[in-house]
Amino acid sequence: MKTRAAVAFEAKKPLEIVEVDLEGPKAGEVLVEIKATGICHTDAYTLDGFDSEGIFPSILGHEGAGIIREIGAGVTSVKPGDHVIPLYTPECRQCKSCLSQKTNLCTAIRATQGKGVMPDGTSRFSYKGKPIYHYMGCSTFSNFTVLPEIAVAKIREDAPFDKSCYIGCGVTTGVGAVVNTAKVTPGSNVVVFGLGGIGLNVIQGAKMAGADKIIGVDINDSKEEWGRRFGMTDFVNPKKLTGDIVPHLVTLTDGGADYTFDCTGNTTVMRQALEACHRGWGTSIIIGVAEAGKEIATRPFQLVTGRNWRGTAFGGARGRTDVPKIVDWYMNGKIQIDPMITHTLKLEDINKGFDLMHEGKSIRSVVVF
Amino acid sequence: MKTRAAVAFEAKKPLEIVEVDLEGPKAGEVLVEIKATGICHTDAYTLDGFDSEGIFPSILGHEGAGIIREIGAGVTSVKPGDHVIPLYTPECRQCKSCLSQKTNLCTAIRATQGKGVMPDGTSRFSYKGKPIYHYMGCSTFSNFTVLPEIAVAKIREDAPFDKSCYIGCGVTTGVGAVVNTAKVTPGSNVVVFGLGGIGLNVIQGAKMAGADKIIGVDINDSKEEWGRRFGMTDFVNPKKLTGDIVPHLVTLTDGGADYTFDCTGNTTVMRQALEACHRGWGTSIIIGVAEAGKEIATRPFQLVTGRNWRGTAFGGARGRTDVPKIVDWYMNGKIQIDPMITHTLKLEDINKGFDLMHEGKSIRSVVVF
Repeated sequence: MKTRAAVAFEAKKPLEIVEVDLEGPKAGEVLVEIKATGICHTDAYTLDGFDSEGIFPSILGHEGAGIIREIGAGVTSVKPGDHVIPLYTPECRQCKSCLSQKTNLCTAIRATQGKGVMPDGTSRFSYKGKPIYHYMGCSTFSNFTVLPEIAVAKIREDAPFDKSCYIGCGVTTGVGAVVNTAKVTPGSNVVVFGLGGIGLNVIQGAKMAGADKIIGVDINDSKEEWGRRFGMTDFVNPKKLTGDIVPHLVTLTDGGADYTFDCTGNTTVMRQALEACHRGWGTSIIIGVAEAGKEIATRPFQLVTGRNWRGTAFGGARGRTDVPKIVDWYMNGKIQIDPMITHTLKLEDINKGFDLMHEGKSIRSVVVF
Repeated sequence: MKTRAAVAFEAKKPLEIVEVDLEGPKAGEVLVEIKATGICHTDAYTLDGFDSEGIFPSILGHEGAGIIREIGAGVTSVKPGDHVIPLYTPECRQCKSCLSQKTNLCTAIRATQGKGVMPDGTSRFSYKGKPIYHYMGCSTFSNFTVLPEIAVAKIREDAPFDKSCYIGCGVTTGVGAVVNTAKVTPGSNVVVFGLGGIGLNVIQGAKMAGADKIIGVDINDSKEEWGRRFGMTDFVNPKKLTGDIVPHLVTLTDGGADYTFDCTGNTTVMRQALEACHRGWGTSIIIGVAEAGKEIATRPFQLVTGRNWRGTAFGGARGRTDVPKIVDWYMNGKIQIDPMITHTLKLEDINKGFDLMHEGKSIRSVVVF
C-alpha cells in the first residue's frame, strides 16, 4: 500500500512529506493507522545528527496513537479496530527481562530495532524501490506503520488520539519515573531538575503520588508558571542564586530530598541531583539523555553515606501492562495532558514543530493525520 | 582511673603503649573494659596520615568487645557486667535518621564524634595532663574506654571476645552489606571485588542468603583458597585475563550480576563493579573507602538502562538492633569468624599487627587484653 509520511532522508535536513510504499504486516505484526503523533526531543536528537547510531533514510516518530487496521498471521492480542499506542519499549512477556519482573527493558527485538528493521531483518517501508528504515520500532511520522504485536498497547476507545499519543513517550517517561522507578511515597520531598515536558510530567506524577514539597529547578523563569500548574510547590532558578544550588536545596528540603529527578541530560546537573539527596536514603533518578561521550561523576562518599543513583527508561513502564493504566489516569483526571499540548499541526507543518521545539516555544507539538 | 592503652601520638609513627588517665562515665555514658580488639584498615588509614581529618594524639581502634564496668547517670539500657560491642555507628532511636527506618546512619553524636570528643565536647582520656582524643567514638586500643550508652550493643555472654570483636566492624560491614543494604535473594548471582576481610565476609553473607554463583575477583591468586573456604564458587584474577574484566564477568553471569560489591576502595574497580551488573536490575554496592579526592564515574547510560549504584556503611546495620543478631549467627554456625582471625596478639605487639596488615599477611589480627 501507499502511505503519506514525513521522511528523514538525511541528518540535519528538514523532513520531506512524500508517499512511501508500505508492505502489509507479516506474521506477528500489525498495521496501524496513526491518527496523531507527538514530536519528541529524541526525534530531533536523531534528525540533528547527534545520535551516532542514527540511520537514514528513515521515518522518525515514536510517540503516536492510532487504530489497528490489519493483523498478520498468529496475532491474537489485538484485532482490527482496536485503539493502540505504539511502544518503542515492547513487552514480550517471554524474555529474561520481562520474566524477571524487575525491569521493563524487554530484549525480544532489541537487536533488529536498533538497526531500523523489523524482527525478520527487513524494512516494511520503501521509496522509489529503495528501503526506508524504521525508527525506534515505531515510525509514527507516517499515516500508516507496521509494528510487532508485542509493541502495541491496547487502550480505551474514548481517549482522544491527539492527547493520548503523548502517553507514548513523554507522559509515561515522567509519570512512570515517579511511580514505577522511584516509587515516590506520600509525604516525600522531591526535586525536579529541568521543567520541559518530561519535568512537568515528573511534577504531576509526584503530586499524584502525594509528595509534600515538589521543588522545580530551571534556568528559565518562565517555567515557574508551568511548574506550578502541575503541582510544583517551590521554584529555584540556579542562575539567580548567589551560592551553590546543592546546599540551597539541602536547606530547602531540611537535609536533602527524598527523591530527585534529572530531566536535563546535563551531566553536571545529574551530579547536583545526586548530591541534593538526603544522606541515608535519598534516591536520584536520571531520566535525561546525555550527550554522547559525557560521563557522570561524584565522590564515592556520596553513595557510601546512603544516596542511591539510578536511572529510568520509558518511565520503567511495561508498555502493554502500564500504558493503558496511564491512559485511564488521564481520562479520569488524575493527570493532565491537554495544557501540555501547546501546538497541534498538520503533517505538512511537521518541520515547524521541530522549529518550535528548538526555539523553546512549545511544551509538546502534536501532528494529527 | 588509669588504663593501659596504645596511643597514636602522631601520624606515621608506631603506637606507644602507655598508662593514660581515664575519667569515669558522665551522664548517658558507660565505662567498658575492652577484652579484645581487631586492627582494621581504617585504623591504619588514619595512622598512616591518609585521613585529612585524623586527629592526634588519639587512641585508635573501633572493632572491640568487652564488659560494662560502670554506668553514668540516667543509663538504663545496659548495666555493669553486660557484654557489649562498641559501635562507631551508634543507634539513638530518636534522630531523624533512626526514625526514618531507611538508614542506619544515626546522626545523634556525629558532630562531636568527628572531632574526637564525647557528646559534651570533651575527651575522657588524658596523658600527663593533656587530652588524648577519642577515635570513631570507640578507642578500643585501650583496656578501658568510655562510650555513650547509644554506642554499645549488648550481646550474649557466651560469645568469645577474641572472635566477636570482629563483628564490631569487618563482619558486620561485609555480611550486613549483603543482608541489609543489597538484600541479596536466593538464586542471585553475586560478584565480589577484593577478597580481604570485608570481601570474605561479603562472600559468606551471600552464601548465607542463598546466592547461586558467588564470583570472587582479586589480583592475588592466593586469595582463591580463602574465598572458596567461605562459599565462593568462581575465582577471577583480572591480571590473568587477556581481555577486559567486565565482559568476562557479564558472560560468566549470563548477562551480568544481580549484585556486585566493591571491597577494594579503588574507584576504577568501583566502575567495573557497576558495569558488570545486569542490565535492568543489577545493583552495585560500594563498601571500600576511596582515597581522598578520588571520584567514581560512568556513562549515565549505565544507570538509564537499569543498573543501580549504591553504597553502604557499617553494612547498613543498626548497631544495637542488628549486631546482636550477627553474634547469634556466629554462635549458631551460620557464619564463620574463627578462620579469619589469623593472628592473636598482646597489646605490646599491636604494631606488629599493623605490619602484618601492610605486608598482606593477615586477614584479621586481634589484640587481646
